[in-house]
Amino acid sequence: MKALVFAGPGKKELREVDKPRVVKDSDAVVRLVKTTICGTDLHILGGDVPAVKEGTILGHEGIGIVEEVGAGVSNFKVGDKVIISCVTSCGKCHYCKKSLYAHCEDGGWILGHLINGTQAEYVHIPHADNSLYHIPQGISDDAAVMISDILPTGLEIGVLNGQVSPGDVVAIVGAGPIGMSALLTSQFYSPSKIIMIDLDDNRLQESKKFGATETINSRDAQAAIDKIFEMTDGRGVDVAIEAVGYPATFDICQRILSPGGRLANVGVHGKPVDLQLQDLWIRNVTISTGLVSTSTTPMLIKTLETGKIKPERLATHRYKFDDMMEAYETFANAADEHALKIIIDFQ
Amino acid sequence: MKALVFAGPGKKELREVDKPRVVKDSDAVVRLVKTTICGTDLHILGGDVPAVKEGTILGHEGIGIVEEVGAGVSNFKVGDKVIISCVTSCGKCHYCKKSLYAHCEDGGWILGHLINGTQAEYVHIPHADNSLYHIPQGISDDAAVMISDILPTGLEIGVLNGQVSPGDVVAIVGAGPIGMSALLTSQFYSPSKIIMIDLDDNRLQESKKFGATETINSRDAQAAIDKIFEMTDGRGVDVAIEAVGYPATFDICQRILSPGGRLANVGVHGKPVDLQLQDLWIRNVTISTGLVSTSTTPMLIKTLETGKIKPERLATHRYKFDDMMEAYETFANAADEHALKIIIDFQ
Amino acid sequence: MKALVFAGPGKKELREVDKPRVVKDSDAVVRLVKTTICGTDLHILGGDVPAVKEGTILGHEGIGIVEEVGAGVSNFKVGDKVIISCVTSCGKCHYCKKSLYAHCEDGGWILGHLINGTQAEYVHIPHADNSLYHIPQGISDDAAVMISDILPTGLEIGVLNGQVSPGDVVAIVGAGPIGMSALLTSQFYSPSKIIMIDLDDNRLQESKKFGATETINSRDAQAAIDKIFEMTDGRGVDVAIEAVGYPATFDICQRILSPGGRLANVGVHGKPVDLQLQDLWIRNVTISTGLVSTSTTPMLIKTLETGKIKPERLATHRYKFDDMMEAYETFANAADEHALKIIIDFQ
Amino acid sequence: MKALVFAGPGKKELREVDKPRVVKDSDAVVRLVKTTICGTDLHILGGDVPAVKEGTILGHEGIGIVEEVGAGVSNFKVGDKVIISCVTSCGKCHYCKKSLYAHCEDGGWILGHLINGTQAEYVHIPHADNSLYHIPQGISDDAAVMISDILPTGLEIGVLNGQVSPGDVVAIVGAGPIGMSALLTSQFYSPSKIIMIDLDDNRLQESKKFGATETINSRDAQAAIDKIFEMTDGRGVDVAIEAVGYPATFDICQRILSPGGRLANVGVHGKPVDLQLQDLWIRNVTISTGLVSTSTTPMLIKTLETGKIKPERLATHRYKFDDMMEAYETFANAADEHALKIIIDFQ
Repeated sequence: MKALVFAGPGKKELREVDKPRVVKDSDAVVRLVKTTICGTDLHILGGDVPAVKEGTILGHEGIGIVEEVGAGVSNFKVGDKVIISCVTSCGKCHYCKKSLYAHCEDGGWILGHLINGTQAEYVHIPHADNSLYHIPQGISDDAAVMISDILPTGLEIGVLNGQVSPGDVVAIVGAGPIGMSALLTSQFYSPSKIIMIDLDDNRLQESKKFGATETINSRDAQAAIDKIFEMTDGRGVDVAIEAVGYPATFDICQRILSPGGRLANVGVHGKPVDLQLQDLWIRNVTISTGLVSTSTTPMLIKTLETGKIKPERLATHRYKFDDMMEAYETFANAADEHALKIIIDFQ
Repeated sequence: MKALVFAGPGKKELREVDKPRVVKDSDAVVRLVKTTICGTDLHILGGDVPAVKEGTILGHEGIGIVEEVGAGVSNFKVGDKVIISCVTSCGKCHYCKKSLYAHCEDGGWILGHLINGTQAEYVHIPHADNSLYHIPQGISDDAAVMISDILPTGLEIGVLNGQVSPGDVVAIVGAGPIGMSALLTSQFYSPSKIIMIDLDDNRLQESKKFGATETINSRDAQAAIDKIFEMTDGRGVDVAIEAVGYPATFDICQRILSPGGRLANVGVHGKPVDLQLQDLWIRNVTISTGLVSTSTTPMLIKTLETGKIKPERLATHRYKFDDMMEAYETFANAADEHALKIIIDFQ
Repeated sequence: MKALVFAGPGKKELREVDKPRVVKDSDAVVRLVKTTICGTDLHILGGDVPAVKEGTILGHEGIGIVEEVGAGVSNFKVGDKVIISCVTSCGKCHYCKKSLYAHCEDGGWILGHLINGTQAEYVHIPHADNSLYHIPQGISDDAAVMISDILPTGLEIGVLNGQVSPGDVVAIVGAGPIGMSALLTSQFYSPSKIIMIDLDDNRLQESKKFGATETINSRDAQAAIDKIFEMTDGRGVDVAIEAVGYPATFDICQRILSPGGRLANVGVHGKPVDLQLQDLWIRNVTISTGLVSTSTTPMLIKTLETGKIKPERLATHRYKFDDMMEAYETFANAADEHALKIIIDFQ
Repeated sequence: MKALVFAGPGKKELREVDKPRVVKDSDAVVRLVKTTICGTDLHILGGDVPAVKEGTILGHEGIGIVEEVGAGVSNFKVGDKVIISCVTSCGKCHYCKKSLYAHCEDGGWILGHLINGTQAEYVHIPHADNSLYHIPQGISDDAAVMISDILPTGLEIGVLNGQVSPGDVVAIVGAGPIGMSALLTSQFYSPSKIIMIDLDDNRLQESKKFGATETINSRDAQAAIDKIFEMTDGRGVDVAIEAVGYPATFDICQRILSPGGRLANVGVHGKPVDLQLQDLWIRNVTISTGLVSTSTTPMLIKTLETGKIKPERLATHRYKFDDMMEAYETFANAADEHALKIIIDFQ
């Protein structure tokens, strides 16, 4: 089969490799229908994730058709159409019993990281019963691809950790795919205002289509902060969602919280940040972090069936799997290309 | 009446001043029976809290007898024995309606800060109905003094923010009065281990009497951290309570959290800390801060009536109000004096 | 002033009475702009609420202009436009401190019940700071009237007690004003299905305009129950909201719950019901009851400002205060008149 | 092997039967070390549980040594000492993913019910990884037996459903093994009062040793109810736990709730009860039911390691497995025999 393989820092190749097979009773093999590219894939290619060995197939998102199942798999059968969760869950370890699948002791984020991933014609899925999900009628393929990773990430690590509640004022720093997912899923809880903050006016403009009630360009960070206090009667926001991963964006978040406010960090950070504890200790704030557990996937699927939110509109570009190199090119220049998520079709 | 007055940085005086009177319908005046000294009082004397004006009477803790009440006060009458809460609550603003009395728009921490405090023979209490509490039989005076501030602080900002739950492993960094309060009140929720961490072996020894199941001297911070991972099968603690207020103690806390763990900051910090977000982003941790709201005071009173915990044992020294200067001296050298809380008696 | 007075079972009169005045410091007097009629008013008139004395002015809902305030009132001034909450809260008793204002020891539901109510040109409001709410721009008068009682009742006692969550299947039995309020406010939490159940096809039809995703006529109760199991893969509903108050409607609710389901009783019941505990004990269900506390009023106001839901559409009929007798006539025949809420204007 | 077999209503036999074997990859076989008898076993023998077929081995509690494991079992190996959970969990169905193992679609309560149980020398355990638990050092065998069923039942269905919190007043109706388990585990949350209610003075006396702060004989139900209101300043209890299963005991519970109170039904009921909704609708109460999920087992094990509670003292009698018939005799006359739990030893 064909697969996109990490060939060492800065290098990727579309190669012919062996098709995976079921090994354990709890395994499945899935034939990919669609996949996509994540910012993390770019980090891996940049050499920033040393755990990824040369020769690993990239990718941790996608939908497909079950090709083969082990004898112990009871939730799925050959031919089922499924969402592949970015997080693998064994369903029986210390953390899985707490629904913290992100830290599964025989799983977690391993696809396209510690084992072969989804940017290939077929993918091997351990613990299939807890790591795949049926796609019901009424959810488009493009929407379903968003359920692999970005929607549950925005929801669990942004919205739920931030405890977004009806009437809240929410600020989201970062209008990329993850920020947009937080924007979409925060609407499940009816905040009164959702303020989108970014450096890119085009993305801010886009965010209005996804439900932002106000937008602020943070080119001048202090001016952006001042504006937020103006918008909130001088109190600050109830929830600030960090969806970028830099000290500067985290800093905006920690400066705009009202007393009792929550900062939900979703961004992947590469270095420490200055926490202004001399100001924050007295403000009764909460800061949360996290890798997605995809424990909300069943709920997301049911909510998407209603058509309440339209995540398929995050798909801005589409390519054939044979044009994967080009797809990466586009995604690497997302801002210029006005790209959010790129759908890769396997015909 | 006699009162201990802030006379500018580094200076305090025991002065004769006017006895306070009820001004508004919702006020009360309380004759002090006992008061105590808080670390914050030392900060004020050090000049670190510029909001405190010269001439202000210090102190925000104590118990007394109601001397006079305004016409609108319905919960208390003259002669009632009461706990004075360190936080004043109006009961009707934006934050009070959310039980976040710490941020009351006509109160919060004002006693011995923005208005005259409790280190005096009488104190004026605004919003008396929401800022005083009856002392039931079965609670000793010394225990009641601890309910003004340190017990609810340890409970709300340490234990409840940290979501201490049955079976949890809890680490508390700092075995001073606040750390000991967190130690006592965490036992309301039956953790399996409470590990006390401090630089002072005497205090660690004391903490065992208050319920610590293990103690670690953090002289060598890395060794202390290593030991905690050893004690927890390499997973780290469920809850880390910071009860000191320095970057070094915060740092221990952020390094010992298990996935899903909570860091509850109780310490008053004077400068920023380095938040190791490059490690923490993936660990699904929560960091909380806060000033006490004393919203748990009714619950604390009921729980103390049972004798389950013995907070009166935090009272290590006692002085007459006339010897207040000496009491401060002792408290300023708490470690050497083996002091936790100092009870000041009037008459 | 003119007022609608309870003149003994079956009798009501539009009378001239004395205009109320501020008595206590915490009181206000409000000049009514709009009021409405509640099912409870009909019960009182029927003689079913013996606590109501002859001569009491009826009504516990309405909006108006502050006419006079006591010296202790700080949240409102003369001329402010306000929502009158159906529940009076002192803000300082045992229950108010737990946000359970329904059981306020110096308030609760007293308007038009134990003290004079809102179906009059002026109304006396005790504990004004905790019992009135500002009407911000962006909320129409008709919408504001719904915040006095029916919206917080549907939200607190139906939706929040029932823990409606994204993706849930919710059934609401009773498509009258309270059921419609539960229908509107359940949408704050994005359930996947909201099934409306009633005996009146017209009201079921109406409910679709308010957001019901399916409707069932329960003429044949067993057939209705069967249909619900069909709609839910044989599992039953996550939340059943009882918004009528009869044994038969409660019975439907208890028979359609899935394991782990919640039954939120909102209806006012006059007699016991048979609880099928021989079936329910094993199903891990929760049944809740309650009188509204209106503790969600600030949140409702913020959410309504966004225009997300349109409660003003519950106002189906409108009358002048002088035509109050006729308004009651219409409301007493609500089903035939296709009436939900009737707005009464004071010009 | 020897096994206690249900031989039709009223009949049980100690028979020689085939030793079970691992069939599926996820199975284990456990050699019993200790088992016990549950009230449910008596119900089955009485013919009240028609789902139990003749020839079924009884029993759903016990501890033992792993004898054999399937290839897919990763948490256990031959020779491990384990607690057998009364509830079997597949870890991957709709309900297991919500931690509602009681309703597992391929498990739930099946041991000694739909499949052979633990009153035998060996037992076959499906889904072993999610249905067995390691016994750590520091937990005695007798204590461990209580973790199979009665401790998690008392905790999950009584204490957690009842939301027992520090300072609460808790009433427990029924001082049998389950009531005593609720009594023990409610102490994890530090209520201020635990009032035990029963008809048997001996059991009430015993309950004091397990932590009851007051006891009431409910021979005269109205007098018992009156006494409870006296003890609670006329307010009623925060939590009432029903641990019997009769209309009369449920009725006491529904009459003693304070506004905002919770009634946690643990008892197994055979017929409907009269729910006094005409009184309760206005009281903001919650009634919960449930079969245990044993999702708290890991937490219980950690808390028991500390020695905080002594559940082994629930073991009042002990027999050899060969004397099983006599053990049943004793348990069937529990009140006269002053029996709570009976430990059966396999030598």
